[in-house]
Amino acid sequence: MNNFSFYSPTFFEFGQGAEAKTGELIRQFGGTKVLLHYGGGSIRKNGVYGKVIAALTTADIPFTELGGVVPNPRSGLVYEGIELAKKEGVDFILAVGGGSVIDSAKAIAAGVKYDGDFLDFYRKKASIEDALPIGTVLTIAAAGSEGSANSVITDEETQIKKGAYSNKLRPRFSVLNPEFTCTLPAYQTAAGATDIFIHVCKRYFSNTPEVAITDRLCEAVMKTIIYETPRVLRDPNNYDARANIMWAGMIAHNDICGVGREQDWASHHIEHELSAMYDVTHGAGLAVIVPAWMKYVVEKHPERFVPFATEVWGVPLDMPNPIETALRGIERFEAFLKQIGMPSRFSEIGAKKEDIPKLVDKLFANKETEGFYVKLNRDDVTKIYESVADV
Amino acid sequence: MNNFSFYSPTFFEFGQGAEAKTGELIRQFGGTKVLLHYGGGSIRKNGVYGKVIAALTTADIPFTELGGVVPNPRSGLVYEGIELAKKEGVDFILAVGGGSVIDSAKAIAAGVKYDGDFLDFYRKKASIEDALPIGTVLTIAAAGSEGSANSVITDEETQIKKGAYSNKLRPRFSVLNPEFTCTLPAYQTAAGATDIFIHVCKRYFSNTPEVAITDRLCEAVMKTIIYETPRVLRDPNNYDARANIMWAGMIAHNDICGVGREQDWASHHIEHELSAMYDVTHGAGLAVIVPAWMKYVVEKHPERFVPFATEVWGVPLDMPNPIETALRGIERFEAFLKQIGMPSRFSEIGAKKEDIPKLVDKLFANKETEGFYVKLNRDDVTKIYESVADV
Repeated sequence: MNNFSFYSPTFFEFGQGAEAKTGELIRQFGGTKVLLHYGGGSIRKNGVYGKVIAALTTADIPFTELGGVVPNPRSGLVYEGIELAKKEGVDFILAVGGGSVIDSAKAIAAGVKYDGDFLDFYRKKASIEDALPIGTVLTIAAAGSEGSANSVITDEETQIKKGAYSNKLRPRFSVLNPEFTCTLPAYQTAAGATDIFIHVCKRYFSNTPEVAITDRLCEAVMKTIIYETPRVLRDPNNYDARANIMWAGMIAHNDICGVGREQDWASHHIEHELSAMYDVTHGAGLAVIVPAWMKYVVEKHPERFVPFATEVWGVPLDMPNPIETALRGIERFEAFLKQIGMPSRFSEIGAKKEDIPKLVDKLFANKETEGFYVKLNRDDVTKIYESVADV
Repeated sequence: MNNFSFYSPTFFEFGQGAEAKTGELIRQFGGTKVLLHYGGGSIRKNGVYGKVIAALTTADIPFTELGGVVPNPRSGLVYEGIELAKKEGVDFILAVGGGSVIDSAKAIAAGVKYDGDFLDFYRKKASIEDALPIGTVLTIAAAGSEGSANSVITDEETQIKKGAYSNKLRPRFSVLNPEFTCTLPAYQTAAGATDIFIHVCKRYFSNTPEVAITDRLCEAVMKTIIYETPRVLRDPNNYDARANIMWAGMIAHNDICGVGREQDWASHHIEHELSAMYDVTHGAGLAVIVPAWMKYVVEKHPERFVPFATEVWGVPLDMPNPIETALRGIERFEAFLKQIGMPSRFSEIGAKKEDIPKLVDKLFANKETEGFYVKLNRDDVTKIYESVADV
């Protein structure tokens, strides 16, 4: 096990009606004037907007609004938010939505406290020393941004999707009401579950030995997603299944599953190029890329694929032929993704084979290799993209 | 799943050499004058004391010392600590030791900020509204107090061991260096591992249905303890095994494994009477009581014992005879406790059969029943004690 720090100070209020506490939570964490940040119209349609406004009004908290965050959130709106927050003198940002809204709020929070271009943080030209406090009301179980130190933004100028990381970005509080996720379309629900599962894969496929406790925690999240996702697709209003998925989504990404071990985010980055270029839902893009990555690297380095098969998918261990065991695990994962309606090919997500050189160029713009579990070069990534690109 | 709040704001610095950061962590969390609280001589013998003093000196942090905490920490030293902290004007308490030292530090921290008798918090006559900030340098993997909101103190006047709970008691930071646990005697190591395992049992044996994610997390901790404990007893200097147990100890008790579900602390309370009366190591007392509790309640309410057997102990499910499956799980647990050198009878921990009426009287001094998974009355608890009392 490697040395590590772990810090997850977010206060979570979880369950039916939890949003009613939003106002008092803002007060508790020092907010007196709020920027309310959200996406498109869905929170108005499903009533979440009204409930949050009621909570703010009851607590007598003044707020100003900025909607319009799109999936794969864009730098343009972040600049607008920074300007608005400064002009209005807000001291707290409340994100109401999914990972895109929260990531956009985090970018605004850091940008307000920085004199330069906020994209410096995402281009690794500066590190985040300060940020406005933020709170969240979560409406999609997927990105885990409600408990994470991460934010991912698409630079509109270059169409490059990049991440920033700082404990300063961790929300002060997050309100998680699983009921809010019951109205999500099946595709969004499944893509979210895929994102959660794969957040844990990035941590599970590690070269660090002797991390039994985090191995078992990763498996706990994966087994929960495997069990609950088909149930919720059959019965979208199943509160308990929604609740288990929602809490698993937080645990998958606040890093309790990842401390003390090297992590491999290669397949995430390989996907980011797709979602930046084609505006694919991140979870759906991952459903295409991650099995392709697995099949490409498994023979080079089967080690972690064996417990993935035996512990997560219940494949019996064929000790003389561990690679067979490993392959059975990947096949079961692919079958699961298909069962829950996720895509597996470029054509299903609007990606084009002829764009592969451009995708690879963007991914390797500032680096020679990608990933740790198996180090990948341009040629490797090209082959991974090609393996799922339709002829 | 029940509604819940979850808040675990402690900053964890984990790994070899982590204690060198103690001074800067105190500064970071606002401490300028420290009460250094510890137990007997062990931290001087194993060098931990010197390392912590060096870290405080390097960071130029003045401190005053109060040693002498004993296992099952006593109210007398807490009063002394409160007085000393007030007299010296300390603004931060650093606990260096195991659960007893940390629990004693928490009691002092709350007592300093309270005008009445600190035992009011433990007698449930008052709730903790404020406390001095505390930090910890952990030397035993067991109680989980380094990440928990709990403190347990023995009232010396009545010999009753009682707990208090408040998020105000959660340490600001905890330093976890697994090397510090390598010099522990085998019995203490095994008793600590037992305590960790059973902290999770209290959460696992719940009447709340539909808590898949926390079920899987509980199993993650239990499987880690089952795997690593025999290894560390055979090879006490195995750093990675020590590290996995130490981190499992935190996860077992910061409540990430327990949120959203009713918890049943009956067997903990039944044991507390033993450790208060005979000064038994808590984990060893639990090794005697918990299997006895399990055997007493399993036929009344087998439900949770079935996954305990199948998921934790790998017992095949005999669906027409689930009670048989359940019993196999309990038997494997008992065999494991024996394997790691834990006691199973009163005579091994110095407890006496003739004291049973007194133990029961103390347990039921202020209540009619104990526990939730199966509600126990005086007669039930008498039978549980009797089942492990030697003739």
